Amino acid sequence: MTLAPPSFTLLAVTGGHGGAVPEVLLGLAFVLVGAKLAGAVAEWLGAPAVLGELLVGVAIGNLTLVGGPDLTGIGAREAFIVLAELGAILLLFQVGLESTPRDMLAVGRPAFLVAVVGVVTPMVLGFGVGRVMRPGEPWMLHAFLGAMLAATSVGITARVLGDLGALKTRAARIILGAAVIDDVLGLVVLAVITGIIGAAAAGTTLGMGEVAIIVAKAVAFLVGALVLGGFLSPRLFRQSYALKPGGLIQAISLSFCFLLSYLALLAGLAPIVGAFAAGLVLEDVHFEKHVKRGERPLHETLEPLIALFVPVFFVRMGMLVDVRSFARPDVLGFAVLLTVAAILGKLVCAAAVPRGVPGLLVGLGMMPRGEVGLIFAGIGAQLMLDGRPVVDAGSYAAAVFMVVATTLATPPALAWATRRKGALSAEPG
Amino acid sequence: MTLAPPSFTLLAVTGGHGGAVPEVLLGLAFVLVGAKLAGAVAEWLGAPAVLGELLVGVAIGNLTLVGGPDLTGIGAREAFIVLAELGAILLLFQVGLESTPRDMLAVGRPAFLVAVVGVVTPMVLGFGVGRVMRPGEPWMLHAFLGAMLAATSVGITARVLGDLGALKTRAARIILGAAVIDDVLGLVVLAVITGIIGAAAAGTTLGMGEVAIIVAKAVAFLVGALVLGGFLSPRLFRQSYALKPGGLIQAISLSFCFLLSYLALLAGLAPIVGAFAAGLVLEDVHFEKHVKRGERPLHETLEPLIALFVPVFFVRMGMLVDVRSFARPDVLGFAVLLTVAAILGKLVCAAAVPRGVPGLLVGLGMMPRGEVGLIFAGIGAQLMLDGRPVVDAGSYAAAVFMVVATTLATPPALAWATRRKGALSAEPG
Repeated sequence: MTLAPPSFTLLAVTGGHGGAVPEVLLGLAFVLVGAKLAGAVAEWLGAPAVLGELLVGVAIGNLTLVGGPDLTGIGAREAFIVLAELGAILLLFQVGLESTPRDMLAVGRPAFLVAVVGVVTPMVLGFGVGRVMRPGEPWMLHAFLGAMLAATSVGITARVLGDLGALKTRAARIILGAAVIDDVLGLVVLAVITGIIGAAAAGTTLGMGEVAIIVAKAVAFLVGALVLGGFLSPRLFRQSYALKPGGLIQAISLSFCFLLSYLALLAGLAPIVGAFAAGLVLEDVHFEKHVKRGERPLHETLEPLIALFVPVFFVRMGMLVDVRSFARPDVLGFAVLLTVAAILGKLVCAAAVPRGVPGLLVGLGMMPRGEVGLIFAGIGAQLMLDGRPVVDAGSYAAAVFMVVATTLATPPALAWATRRKGALSAEPG
Repeated sequence: MTLAPPSFTLLAVTGGHGGAVPEVLLGLAFVLVGAKLAGAVAEWLGAPAVLGELLVGVAIGNLTLVGGPDLTGIGAREAFIVLAELGAILLLFQVGLESTPRDMLAVGRPAFLVAVVGVVTPMVLGFGVGRVMRPGEPWMLHAFLGAMLAATSVGITARVLGDLGALKTRAARIILGAAVIDDVLGLVVLAVITGIIGAAAAGTTLGMGEVAIIVAKAVAFLVGALVLGGFLSPRLFRQSYALKPGGLIQAISLSFCFLLSYLALLAGLAPIVGAFAAGLVLEDVHFEKHVKRGERPLHETLEPLIALFVPVFFVRMGMLVDVRSFARPDVLGFAVLLTVAAILGKLVCAAAVPRGVPGLLVGLGMMPRGEVGLIFAGIGAQLMLDGRPVVDAGSYAAAVFMVVATTLATPPALAWATRRKGALSAEPG
């Protein structure tokens, strides 16, 4: 006898619908309305809507502090992670759609310069903070701390620039191009450093050949996606026009986005890099004939998907914040130093922009670390060297503080910088 | 040392994005385009598009038969189950939006009659098949076989009627109303029978009080959702109009759908019953002022969500089919008998419709068992009586055959019945 009372039988019925389904339904119901209302309050206060969504997440993730239930387990469920990740992917796809490879190449040189400055400076500063705060540790640990400061979380910045209606300005293109290059550089740096630490822990060293393979995969993906995708996609869409079914073009476009996100993962990059590349490659001109035939333009199809998935991403990002970690005095000094290094390291980018582009705005736009920083810190906490984790508990809390501070500060800072200079509205790309 | 080679490090990075993310991305990319193309081929052959999506699922789920990879594990992942279930929920929400509680009450009496006939007859026939094929077993096992034949899978029928543009006809309303009542009756019957079997296995009997609680919960949900929801929702939408943010009304509507789906689960019903009730309660008139202000009507917002999620549901339903189980000769006789009982049991509904409504069409519309039948069979396979499963391997294979046959036969049968009589187009509700 393995199954008895009727109430458990009813649970078995619901279990047949997937154990996560009840939690996801309840979670989506609250996230959708909660994020919308919090976003409205934030906008009413003059802040970008995304700040409200992040703070709703922080509140949900820390309910235990006020005697509420612990909901962090729901945020860690596979189904929620997937929905959130789809949100980030669709957001970057939409952002990519607003530009073409030509637009990005037009800002290619300044974006690359900004990206390199924005990776190297935080790495050097982070390395220095590591030397000061953890003097007895090997250099590889300090380098890992530096690497944690490298990558820009393009999701936050893209969303804020979108909320401000400024995605097509030159400054926005430089920020987005540089942020994507940062993501690529950051992931490559992370892969190389964890490789070096792994080899050191095993008593060997990482060969240049292995480093070259990591770099080559990332470069091959980007070049392949932009060149091959740019060549194939107009032909594919022309073929799809010949076929009758409505919605085929939308299905193919979404599939293309998901496929490139998958291939980016295979190349060791973040899926959002692939989604952004997919958006860049697809152009409105491919859809003109379809739209004339009465089909919806792609951006109209995307809006409801974005409205459903993206709040899940930002709320979940807020939920990852453990407010208590900021209260530890031994952590606070480290955390403040690391945060200052993270902010200064990106603000230096202001010096790397060409004449006529608001440098402060670009520097502030590069600031948020978001989920990329949290992922880096998490990997460091699992990575062992001499029997201890590369990122110890104190460093981890400091890293979380740095991520939270840079992420939460970016939306209001960008809004302030825009208002102050009228920079974005005055200067169309 | 727990982590060494750089290639594994790269996997760790992707792992930070959720272990299921790569599979979901690749799966969605193929499901979206595959379902669309297969649907187009089906329509080109004169069959409903959903048949193409189901068959794509059957093909994906049985690739091993032609030496391909075993992809059934992907379909069983939590993230895919959630995406598929969201598809079924959004589909039934959309179907519910096309009607109002008034419309449904107008067909309430015939729908209830059709539902009761469509539950009692298959139960009696299924019980008889059990007596013939498993003569030595206790009556509870035969009753369980009968219960497996009771519930109608409203998803398939709703989709086919939608593809035919016939959701607003009187016949369609009777079918949908009866199918929802069937879902409720079926789940209540299942809960009662598993309760009886559980009690018998424990050496006791199920009290009438416990049966009454199961029934009361289901009735309370339906009445509460329709009465309370119908009272609250226009007031809620009037409030939301006063608030500024665009998209709030869409967020509230989706949240309402997810919340009622969740509450249906709590009441021991399927989430799609809640989604259908949410759609019934929401009416276009609540949105009129919002649409005048320039916001999108709700059904336009839903379309892209449906285009993304619903194919996942139908493809996954096809993937659950194991083609090999049909090849077992000892199973085939049982399977054919059970299928005949399932089809006859619902076709009898034709006699219960009021004058002027095409009875054959209603009977055929009640035929598909879909995922509900598979869930019932799965629960029976886990339920133990006298140390053996209530649904043994042979009965399970026969049940799967019955589900597949009724599900795959419904789309072409409905299309044929509609063309033959011109019944749906000639008779607007």
